[in-house]
Amino acid sequence: MATADNKLILIYGGKGALGSCLVTYFKSKQFSVISVDLFENTEADKNITLKQTDSWVEQETEALKGVADACGDSKLEAIFCVAGGWAGGNAASHDMVKNADLMVKQSVWSSVIAARIASKFLKVGGVVQLTGAQPATKGTAFMMGYGLAKAAVHQLVASLSSGDTGLPDKALVFAILPVTLDTPGNRKAMSGADTSTWTPLLFIAEYLEKILDGAEKPGNGSLLQLFTEEGKTSIVPV
Amino acid sequence: MATADNKLILIYGGKGALGSCLVTYFKSKQFSVISVDLFENTEADKNITLKQTDSWVEQETEALKGVADACGDSKLEAIFCVAGGWAGGNAASHDMVKNADLMVKQSVWSSVIAARIASKFLKVGGVVQLTGAQPATKGTAFMMGYGLAKAAVHQLVASLSSGDTGLPDKALVFAILPVTLDTPGNRKAMSGADTSTWTPLLFIAEYLEKILDGAEKPGNGSLLQLFTEEGKTSIVPV
Repeated sequence: MATADNKLILIYGGKGALGSCLVTYFKSKQFSVISVDLFENTEADKNITLKQTDSWVEQETEALKGVADACGDSKLEAIFCVAGGWAGGNAASHDMVKNADLMVKQSVWSSVIAARIASKFLKVGGVVQLTGAQPATKGTAFMMGYGLAKAAVHQLVASLSSGDTGLPDKALVFAILPVTLDTPGNRKAMSGADTSTWTPLLFIAEYLEKILDGAEKPGNGSLLQLFTEEGKTSIVPV
Repeated sequence: MATADNKLILIYGGKGALGSCLVTYFKSKQFSVISVDLFENTEADKNITLKQTDSWVEQETEALKGVADACGDSKLEAIFCVAGGWAGGNAASHDMVKNADLMVKQSVWSSVIAARIASKFLKVGGVVQLTGAQPATKGTAFMMGYGLAKAAVHQLVASLSSGDTGLPDKALVFAILPVTLDTPGNRKAMSGADTSTWTPLLFIAEYLEKILDGAEKPGNGSLLQLFTEEGKTSIVPV
């Protein structure tokens, strides 16, 4: 699918807010883009559409089969896993378990399957980016399911970046840890909020491209907190 | 079910190796013991038997209903959640997702449901103990699913110990973080290993009793690493 001019990347969660931004951005930069999501992104060159009701192993099977078809003899330059979502609730919340279940599926299932894809289809020296959350570096009483799912992703980054990881040689694995992303969904859910502290999606797209260009090189295993003030975003490793 | 003389505690995972030890120990100390597990522990005063094939929410529903029946008008002195298991595998392992799924179910589902039980049935000032893992404080490349599930538990402890947690006032929440427990299963799986560095189950039972007695008082939210050398165990907070 990829040609010498069109580098091949995979965006997991390619129909979400951040994922859609990344698909559009990298398409505009002449990348070939595979999107993995529950929904099709028609901008992508290839879609792998997973079923929400499938089990974790079933989703893995579908994803690996789809990526094998999409890649052919090519390898992936990068896997950007930006699937996720948000739900709140402390231990007294009737919905705590239901929400924790959703958070684990959205953040942990996607990240682990992305790691499996990387083990098979990432090029030597390729990039794997996962998505954590800055608040989950501490306790998150008001969003317990969200916090524990993101903490699991943070620890997975550590596992994928040291020792016998099962990834191709010289793979670079890191996570971005946003506080709040400036998405249409967040603007709707928190109307009237101060959006100057929300991280623009385009900042992330540009940062990821700089990593592929070699202009930026985060440490392997790093957890990159994204702090935005007055519309300016700083990257601060945990 | 409890009388003035028989304090009521709940052991989640009460038919596992550590759980069975705790049931026996606390029964010998005149506690009334509720066991929540996939299998019945006939030593316990009351069993709540969950179905492995049930969803997280279904297991929660069954557990809450069973604890309501078992508690009646009484409240729980303590919830000891010692459910868990172990499976290995890095990103290249064919079984990585299958094993991660099992680890999340055994460690995360149980811990979150224990938190839900605590929010409804724990007494003011009661104790919630969860079970993490010392290795998961860092990356665990050779057991990725296990590490991420335990890291989720660690973060849940932080969420349950600060802010508006939804737990009763003055609840004490902490986790034990074993390296290797001296269980029959581990002795079988690792025959010939140096068991002098494995933590005896009885040490944990005695330590938990000391907490209920007030003789030991770990900090709220603490992650207690259990390091054993020459059969002697030290407790070292992370």
